[in-house]
Amino acid sequence: MAEATSRRRSRGGGGAARRAERGSIKIETAKYIERNIPLFEILTEEALEIIETNAETILEEVGVNFVDNPAALERWKEAGATVEGERVRIPRGLARELCKTAPSTITQHARNPEKSVVIGGNSLVCAPVYGPPFVRDVDGGRRYATMDDFQKFVKLGYMSKYLHHSGGTVCEPTDIPVNKRHLDMLLAHMTLSDKPFMGSVTEPSRAQDSVDMAGILFGKDFVQDNTVMTSLININSPMTFDDVMMGALEVYAKNNQACIVSPFIVGGAMAPVSVAGTLTQVMAEVLAGIAYSQLIRKGAPVIFGAFVTSIDMGSGAPTFGTPEASQILYGAGQLARRMGLPFRSGGGLCGSKLPDAQAAYETAHTHNAALLGGVNFMLHSCGWLEGGLVSSFEKFVMDADQLGILQKMAEGVAIDTNGQGMDAIREVGPGGHYLGCAHTQANFKSAFWRSELLDYKPFETWEEEGARDTQTLAANRVKTLLDNYQKPAIDPAIEEALNAYVAEKKASMPDAFI
Amino acid sequence: MAEATSRRRSRGGGGAARRAERGSIKIETAKYIERNIPLFEILTEEALEIIETNAETILEEVGVNFVDNPAALERWKEAGATVEGERVRIPRGLARELCKTAPSTITQHARNPEKSVVIGGNSLVCAPVYGPPFVRDVDGGRRYATMDDFQKFVKLGYMSKYLHHSGGTVCEPTDIPVNKRHLDMLLAHMTLSDKPFMGSVTEPSRAQDSVDMAGILFGKDFVQDNTVMTSLININSPMTFDDVMMGALEVYAKNNQACIVSPFIVGGAMAPVSVAGTLTQVMAEVLAGIAYSQLIRKGAPVIFGAFVTSIDMGSGAPTFGTPEASQILYGAGQLARRMGLPFRSGGGLCGSKLPDAQAAYETAHTHNAALLGGVNFMLHSCGWLEGGLVSSFEKFVMDADQLGILQKMAEGVAIDTNGQGMDAIREVGPGGHYLGCAHTQANFKSAFWRSELLDYKPFETWEEEGARDTQTLAANRVKTLLDNYQKPAIDPAIEEALNAYVAEKKASMPDAFI
Repeated sequence: MAEATSRRRSRGGGGAARRAERGSIKIETAKYIERNIPLFEILTEEALEIIETNAETILEEVGVNFVDNPAALERWKEAGATVEGERVRIPRGLARELCKTAPSTITQHARNPEKSVVIGGNSLVCAPVYGPPFVRDVDGGRRYATMDDFQKFVKLGYMSKYLHHSGGTVCEPTDIPVNKRHLDMLLAHMTLSDKPFMGSVTEPSRAQDSVDMAGILFGKDFVQDNTVMTSLININSPMTFDDVMMGALEVYAKNNQACIVSPFIVGGAMAPVSVAGTLTQVMAEVLAGIAYSQLIRKGAPVIFGAFVTSIDMGSGAPTFGTPEASQILYGAGQLARRMGLPFRSGGGLCGSKLPDAQAAYETAHTHNAALLGGVNFMLHSCGWLEGGLVSSFEKFVMDADQLGILQKMAEGVAIDTNGQGMDAIREVGPGGHYLGCAHTQANFKSAFWRSELLDYKPFETWEEEGARDTQTLAANRVKTLLDNYQKPAIDPAIEEALNAYVAEKKASMPDAFI
Repeated sequence: MAEATSRRRSRGGGGAARRAERGSIKIETAKYIERNIPLFEILTEEALEIIETNAETILEEVGVNFVDNPAALERWKEAGATVEGERVRIPRGLARELCKTAPSTITQHARNPEKSVVIGGNSLVCAPVYGPPFVRDVDGGRRYATMDDFQKFVKLGYMSKYLHHSGGTVCEPTDIPVNKRHLDMLLAHMTLSDKPFMGSVTEPSRAQDSVDMAGILFGKDFVQDNTVMTSLININSPMTFDDVMMGALEVYAKNNQACIVSPFIVGGAMAPVSVAGTLTQVMAEVLAGIAYSQLIRKGAPVIFGAFVTSIDMGSGAPTFGTPEASQILYGAGQLARRMGLPFRSGGGLCGSKLPDAQAAYETAHTHNAALLGGVNFMLHSCGWLEGGLVSSFEKFVMDADQLGILQKMAEGVAIDTNGQGMDAIREVGPGGHYLGCAHTQANFKSAFWRSELLDYKPFETWEEEGARDTQTLAANRVKTLLDNYQKPAIDPAIEEALNAYVAEKKASMPDAFI
């Protein structure tokens, strides 16, 4: 596993040195995951063909709506679709044909080139939680998120080894006006971290701000020639493409920036209450959305997205980590690969109110499915709580630690002479033990993955130290990380220009809070 | 999913009726899992061949020890092995040839025929935690296990829908003399539950008691012609077969009862510190152990076992739910299938001291690997805590609930007309919603798996009800289940005979506590 290492440098003061020693925090970022293992494919060839055929039937007979977007309707008409009001009916095969110009892999550049990621093929890029209006931690409980919280999550993400991406709306900074917060969010990702990040999608003009600020950070020409943002374009399922999301997609596609075209589905409410039916609708929606991106600009980078939860039919609550959610993830991955497109799905999803056992069960099921199901871009990898209403500080570091499991698992099994270990077996023999043998001595440091958070101590030690549960251990880690955070170096002229852009933009508009 | 249902019958009294209403406990047992999904296979054909070849090299060159067991050495000599002291060297191919008489699937009969299980092929049978000397619950904390605890776990197992098997030593009843406790344990499984169970292995004479008591329960002839117990024979890794375990295996094999032949390995200590090396040793040990079972009785039912943990090389603590443990499970499953043998591995393994997030992460990783890795008999499916030192009441019901995920996942994706859901998509159309449509109404009850334990409530309700975490919800469920337990019907003459056997055996020996 190649790693981009930037060891914590001493800030010179005795206090900083002591803190560094106490915390012994080493800042590393693992290279994005490259799977050296097979994928799990739950659908048969026959099932896949039925779903694909049915998806084309939906596009042709039922159609999709492009809302409040006359230009889009024009584009579809020109491309050969039938337009009636806002309904677009797409002849069988047309959408799939249009999708062919989308690239199969995307390189998203980070300002630190060592942290650039490839999205597609055998890659898995882990990005943090996206979207919650609330945050939670042990000390402060559940409360509306602020910009201060947002910055802390960006810092934690920067310091999390197995998180390859800084994400986007790691929480909604509700203390900043709604028409200005995207500027502060972008500024935080650009200056507090050096990992790749996502752009704003809540207004086409905010997408344009994202492109403009990226131009300051990377250089204007660089942005036109390279992908430096991956942004989340949700489809309003069933089969509805609204003008805000499509407007943002249009900006990004025109500027060569990547969009995740992602049906957002609570199963049973926004799609049929069956796995195959849901996959059929996902397929139809993604075909239409990605085809549209290629009408904007042939070759625009896009990702086949799917965010699908199951539902508790008793209460109507969305549910996570369920067998149906996993089946849909596995199936959607297969459909994406058959289209030759990068695939995005959810990561550490859960419905629990607390970072407790429920949260962990549900998260681990989703993590496993994402790894084995071929996800290339895993949003919500860490920190997601309460069905996406809450970004949890403790769960952020808990999940981020768990991502190491996926990273190691993906390496596969070494079968070279050292991996075979026959010398060790011969040396030790029946009844012996391996701790001291030459093979163990040569391999023990990297042989087994080790959590940096979970408890491996003897019972007595654990009890003496306060019988701490995972949440308590995680709260300590959050504090240690934030206490040891150091901003990655950035060209002061660029930072100044970014600050100036944000200040000017903010001054140009009155505050809006809805 | 076919189900053996025995709805709770009212005990007639008003109190019982009220309790039944309050708890609304419905006792169902799901049929053992029959996978309708593919398996995940991590090793290539080439890797498998290398491991198999190396395993034969170990048997031929290094050999295995059969300790304090002259009769075993005689049997090996007769079979064509070279015996030197206690070391048995097995010519290449001989062990594999001997293993060929072992059956590929085993039907283990339960006294309630609806609960009999098939172990092998596409089946997955879930059995509870095995072996811990301690128990833990919220009220009582961690303490030595007693027979009262044991009986409670058997009752919980009986009432757990997705647990197909009553297991064996669900905890060690340390208040009963060590030479007598197997009698009470067997009696509990036989009378408090009607699910299949495991026999004693701690002494050959106790294995014989197990066979004799099974003879009372099932009829002596039935036991000789059918498998009614599946017992856990651990190999003392590396490559050591002790006389106690082999003595128990001899009793079971002679009596046509199934043995799980299972290397017990803390990786890095009892096997090479590499996945392929560990798998090679597992393969060699299982080959030798299963070959030996067939020397006792050709056709004796056996299961390819593997219990392998990784290790924290810092502290030496065994670790669970790690990527290496999953890789080994996946690889061992492939090796077992190539031998045409049923496969056993661990289930809800974890190292945590509490049923918290760590416990759940680690358990979910192991559960997922067991499902996708082709495990046929999953021991420790529920209740395991603290690296197997503790049986946890709360974790028992938490994990047992989670097993429903595996059951549903294994059903695969329905792709019939109803599964395709095209009528629903046509009915609802763009922008509509599915909750009221005909397809949803027809399918919502069984469409999505629903936890009977986890929290799906709105935040405000959850907070008003005390902001309970998973452990607290589980503690309530334990109480509700035990409060509503009703013993399954049993022929009074058989129960009397079992009691008499136990009483007589106990009276025939002085108590022993070591």
